[in-house]
Amino acid sequence: MAAGAVKAQAPEPLTLERFGSFHVGGREVVVSGQPVREVLFTPGGVPARVDPNGTYLMGSMYAQYFVPRPLRGSAPLLMWHGGGLTGVTWETTPDGREGWQHYFLRRGWHVVVSDAVERGRAGWSQIPEQTGGQALTLTVDNPFERFRIGNGQGSYQRGDLLPGNQFPADRESYMNFMRQVVPRFTTTDALTLESYIALLERTGPSVVMVHSQAGQFGWRAAQARPDLVRALVLIEPAAVGDPARVEALRNVPVLMVYGDYIAQDARWPTIRGNGVRFAEAVRAAGGSVDVVDLPERGIRGNSHMIMMDRNSDEVAKLVQDWLAARGLWR
Amino acid sequence: MAAGAVKAQAPEPLTLERFGSFHVGGREVVVSGQPVREVLFTPGGVPARVDPNGTYLMGSMYAQYFVPRPLRGSAPLLMWHGGGLTGVTWETTPDGREGWQHYFLRRGWHVVVSDAVERGRAGWSQIPEQTGGQALTLTVDNPFERFRIGNGQGSYQRGDLLPGNQFPADRESYMNFMRQVVPRFTTTDALTLESYIALLERTGPSVVMVHSQAGQFGWRAAQARPDLVRALVLIEPAAVGDPARVEALRNVPVLMVYGDYIAQDARWPTIRGNGVRFAEAVRAAGGSVDVVDLPERGIRGNSHMIMMDRNSDEVAKLVQDWLAARGLWR
Repeated sequence: MAAGAVKAQAPEPLTLERFGSFHVGGREVVVSGQPVREVLFTPGGVPARVDPNGTYLMGSMYAQYFVPRPLRGSAPLLMWHGGGLTGVTWETTPDGREGWQHYFLRRGWHVVVSDAVERGRAGWSQIPEQTGGQALTLTVDNPFERFRIGNGQGSYQRGDLLPGNQFPADRESYMNFMRQVVPRFTTTDALTLESYIALLERTGPSVVMVHSQAGQFGWRAAQARPDLVRALVLIEPAAVGDPARVEALRNVPVLMVYGDYIAQDARWPTIRGNGVRFAEAVRAAGGSVDVVDLPERGIRGNSHMIMMDRNSDEVAKLVQDWLAARGLWR
Repeated sequence: MAAGAVKAQAPEPLTLERFGSFHVGGREVVVSGQPVREVLFTPGGVPARVDPNGTYLMGSMYAQYFVPRPLRGSAPLLMWHGGGLTGVTWETTPDGREGWQHYFLRRGWHVVVSDAVERGRAGWSQIPEQTGGQALTLTVDNPFERFRIGNGQGSYQRGDLLPGNQFPADRESYMNFMRQVVPRFTTTDALTLESYIALLERTGPSVVMVHSQAGQFGWRAAQARPDLVRALVLIEPAAVGDPARVEALRNVPVLMVYGDYIAQDARWPTIRGNGVRFAEAVRAAGGSVDVVDLPERGIRGNSHMIMMDRNSDEVAKLVQDWLAARGLWR
């Protein structure tokens, strides 16, 4: 058995200088004038009267940090998940390997994995007056077909994987991934950005790594507080920043990473095209943005969930090398 | 400065043999015949059409495990949170000290902190046909007055703490605690128990430590699978098990811990009374249940959130000593 395979079976112990969790952000909201509701606490029981009026705390977010020994990263490495998901994205992969949280911890990064506003341990709000939208959950076939795992619409039912796909799509692993899916609120972007900025204020200057929906939060947080973002790593960002403020990104080095199967996808050519155009605007304003299409580097088969794909360590190494080349790791 | 205070400032590094996370449990649910909805993804934008029909995965739960080196606990130590909260209960305290997760890890326990069905990283369901109930969120004054921090109704507004109370109730710490509060579903008990049993099947025989609402899940999981519960530690359990099946608990040693201010509270004399009566029934069936009222041991000022109180380490030591005395730690 190869040394690499042995290592995957029994990884080395990890020494933590410290670890823990905290919440940041949020605001107090007063609800008044609402009718008292009847609530059923136990099926078949007697409804209880609940008064929904009062002061609530909403819009905060959750973060868990790990500081390894020895510490080699020059700043905390913040990992921000995508829509309909939580920080679990960065933890153990759906087929049970170590995730990017572990990969970067083992290389000496202080890693902070968070749950964005309205998702996971951030909690979510009962106050429609504030969030104004609805929450959507994905059906089991949706990510399979939309995250470039299966070969387009109907592929989940057909069991039709994209050829060479690296996502662990055996039934057990795929269902482990679906268990990570949480409802997605549609109109909480402003609250989410606000709490991400509060997170940066708490951690201090950091490297920010984002996935998918968090593309917009990474770009916009860096535009709002470029002093707090040492570098921005965007894994298949689904949205861009504020086009009117690209000059704010002049001094923030940026890496964008895209996976495989994009040209043949219904949506991703447009999403990638928007991202690349935004990158060009940042460059024109004096910024530095590297765009990596993995297949052009000979790294093939990556779905939208690159950090979970079977070759996740190979892509993590590409990111790690990029950060080291920018002097952010010693 | 005392040695203890120095230690609190700069705790020793911790070596982990491994750590990671996973989801367990859940079921596929088919939704059909529902109308297509209009959903607003961006405020001021154009509503999109969303078809809610399809197959969903619901009712799973999340767990994060840490295996320290050296390992001294004889079984995994599972920590189950109370209603309206998540696994964060057991992590860092609201005033930033190490929580019980750290306390037991540092003593060599393999610790598993989880988020129950419909809370935190377990996600929650969009499918009212399945959950059948409503979700409630607590106002900021509610836990202050109900968890024996403040002196009864109106005490939050009055800033009226119970005398000698150990909960870190300065405004910053209390708001950190409120940020941990998540909506509570009222009719998901069966799903929750089902996934806790799936968790035990995954971890194998374990020590189960529960808080508050999880009292019922700890008792009932032990009744369903006594072969998988090496011991049961109930921190202020809010509910009991199945009175018709007390004999299933014959071989599961049980510790129940209650804090201070119970006699003068509106609800806790009844809740504790129910717990103690259930304990007597378990003993009558041949089981072993120890009931500890902390004030009787000279440990005073504990709220309902004992694992967050300023003397949390003192109570953790009492639990640790009990587990060691039962041969579960070496």
